[in-house]
Amino acid sequence: MNLHGPDEPVFLPQGFLWSATKAGIKASGRPDVALAEAPLGAAAAAMFTRNRVVAAPVEVGRANLRKNHGHVRAVLVNAGNANCATGAPGLAVARQSCAALAVALEAAPHFIIPSSTGIIGVPLPVEKLVAAVPSVVESRANTAEALKSFATAIMTTDTRMKLASAEFSVGKKTVRIAGVCKGSGMIHPNMATMLVYLFTDLDAEPKELQSALKTAVDTTFNVISVDGDTSTNDTVLLLASGTSKVKLAAAGVANNAANNAPKKFDEALHAVCASLAEQVVRDGEGAKHLVRLQIKQAKSLNEARTIARSIANSPLVKTAWAGCDPNWGRILSSVGKSGVAVNPSKINIFFGPQQLCKNGTAHPFDERLAHEYLKQPEYEISVELGRGCISLEFLTCDLTHEYVSINADYST
Amino acid sequence: MNLHGPDEPVFLPQGFLWSATKAGIKASGRPDVALAEAPLGAAAAAMFTRNRVVAAPVEVGRANLRKNHGHVRAVLVNAGNANCATGAPGLAVARQSCAALAVALEAAPHFIIPSSTGIIGVPLPVEKLVAAVPSVVESRANTAEALKSFATAIMTTDTRMKLASAEFSVGKKTVRIAGVCKGSGMIHPNMATMLVYLFTDLDAEPKELQSALKTAVDTTFNVISVDGDTSTNDTVLLLASGTSKVKLAAAGVANNAANNAPKKFDEALHAVCASLAEQVVRDGEGAKHLVRLQIKQAKSLNEARTIARSIANSPLVKTAWAGCDPNWGRILSSVGKSGVAVNPSKINIFFGPQQLCKNGTAHPFDERLAHEYLKQPEYEISVELGRGCISLEFLTCDLTHEYVSINADYST
Repeated sequence: MNLHGPDEPVFLPQGFLWSATKAGIKASGRPDVALAEAPLGAAAAAMFTRNRVVAAPVEVGRANLRKNHGHVRAVLVNAGNANCATGAPGLAVARQSCAALAVALEAAPHFIIPSSTGIIGVPLPVEKLVAAVPSVVESRANTAEALKSFATAIMTTDTRMKLASAEFSVGKKTVRIAGVCKGSGMIHPNMATMLVYLFTDLDAEPKELQSALKTAVDTTFNVISVDGDTSTNDTVLLLASGTSKVKLAAAGVANNAANNAPKKFDEALHAVCASLAEQVVRDGEGAKHLVRLQIKQAKSLNEARTIARSIANSPLVKTAWAGCDPNWGRILSSVGKSGVAVNPSKINIFFGPQQLCKNGTAHPFDERLAHEYLKQPEYEISVELGRGCISLEFLTCDLTHEYVSINADYST
Repeated sequence: MNLHGPDEPVFLPQGFLWSATKAGIKASGRPDVALAEAPLGAAAAAMFTRNRVVAAPVEVGRANLRKNHGHVRAVLVNAGNANCATGAPGLAVARQSCAALAVALEAAPHFIIPSSTGIIGVPLPVEKLVAAVPSVVESRANTAEALKSFATAIMTTDTRMKLASAEFSVGKKTVRIAGVCKGSGMIHPNMATMLVYLFTDLDAEPKELQSALKTAVDTTFNVISVDGDTSTNDTVLLLASGTSKVKLAAAGVANNAANNAPKKFDEALHAVCASLAEQVVRDGEGAKHLVRLQIKQAKSLNEARTIARSIANSPLVKTAWAGCDPNWGRILSSVGKSGVAVNPSKINIFFGPQQLCKNGTAHPFDERLAHEYLKQPEYEISVELGRGCISLEFLTCDLTHEYVSINADYST
């Protein structure tokens, strides 16, 4: 399996067409409407935000996926307005945009998934979105440039386009998977959302895709945190065109050397999701440091994640990182307040190669070296719990003056 | 019932002696050791941190309270060092300091409660603490000045001494209650802790006191948040000297006009705790705004508190407050991510007199007025949930550049 980042050539999944255009929804005047089209019969899997407050496109998208039984023809995304907290008119707007695209693509409206990101609580100007449909339909193409235009149009406060792609072989055939996403805080200044779109030319059933997607998301997008806030629009959508003619093995089919597609696909999907998740944390609002939290010796993945989140969402830990302060006491205290029944006298903490805390108490370390270590743009902090044998890597970032500036910025 | 704040005359509970001295534990050289002595037989109640990582003095204090069955002779507090993450030697140090004071007061060591606040993971210089004992024993007095010297010596990053006192009459007798505390973040730069000491001359059993204390803490110190972090040393201790000769009614005793002590005591204890809790939030690290969150129409106090904490601990909400930004979308989203099964279409949000969100969607409001409202040093934000009839006031503050500076400050 080969994995490429945003600056490398794209392994382009076949069967899809992408495009983007300017609809005038973003105040900046930049491209703000994006289209991805899949061939007839393409399978889909999706995961949405767990926030109880849910944007209109998420509600309409969920309903459409129920109606179309996991078969999707196209995704229509707009940035600049989240269409959230917009009530019944917001739902009508989301449905109207699907209908407009459905006519152009000669499909039923429930085969379209709508997505929105941007300001909350402001009506989405549906006439602008509908007026953009002919343009995105006309310019759609199966090229890396088209995919990149899609990835760029969905950005809001992101400073960088986010893209990853992978390919693997099954027998003599090649399967490709490409993903794009946006997000740099779980919620932005009046903006919302992490949106992820994954495209593969594998041939798979919606049910198989959903199971593969859940596994990949749990170990990638669910183990990152910028600020601990969950958006109202979070969406991860996976589409499979089937164009590669490589079938994902159905349950019950005997595994043989020729049919190792499921394992290879899981690996490639995980790699693409992990790369995108890391790109999100690297672009975290105001972030100066990418921190790889290594939680070790946990009893379960669940408790490892709970402890990682307790550390990653502590303002005191995050501000210490901003100051390159080798403050292991705040990390120990965050482990203690996580709710997991840890035994403090079994906890060890390492900043890179140096141990700072042994059995819950101070361990002699070179403070100057530790400070230098924390000055790096990317580093590792390990916490051993002494409870079991489960490990987890969790990605997060520091909380800086710039984060406060970005999110407190208000012009009268 | 009369309540006085830190700048008004103190209602001084009888039977107690206070003092403070400089032991050289604080790097600043300021007073850092404080003593409070109660008369023989005084009753005690206490609540400690729920953090699994617990400082040595908390462990020793808990053990002593079990041994002395809720009867306490003295409290010995040091600031500048939390004696936390210090292992078995830390426990020995806490016990040694109790023993030294016990000798001077001619009491058994388990009648002493130790308390510490300050840096985590550094051995507490016990010789300095023990050497300070003769000085605090000699200078102890039942005066407002002595109580204020106690309140000042326990400060770490606090910018103001925190004190409140109340008195009420039962028949011809007067009962007084005074409280002091420290805390301005739940944990400080390498520092820990909210410490609260409450003194009353009421005559009560430890069990009665514990029940009154739990009620008071639940509706005061447990409904505030500066940064969502729970310290390893948090302690609230209530001592009753009995000197007023007013008995707190034992359970089962008939209530009559002459014996309304329980109700009056609960009121006064709540008032003192509420005043101290508000003083803590006002002195929150870097805080520029005190926010009174009014959670209304909840089904239970528990869900009201869960929702209040979800709002109060959201970095996006707190930074919007720092920018005086009338951003109701972030508040709505925080309610949605709280885990409570809210119906977004029933939620109303008010910034002071103005409604900004009605039934989960935007409600027309005067943006300039809302911005001016949020420029005030103290204001109210109300959230109606449409679920029940329980209300809760929760105090919190904004997340500012100064918070990041205070907590990221690290000098090589």
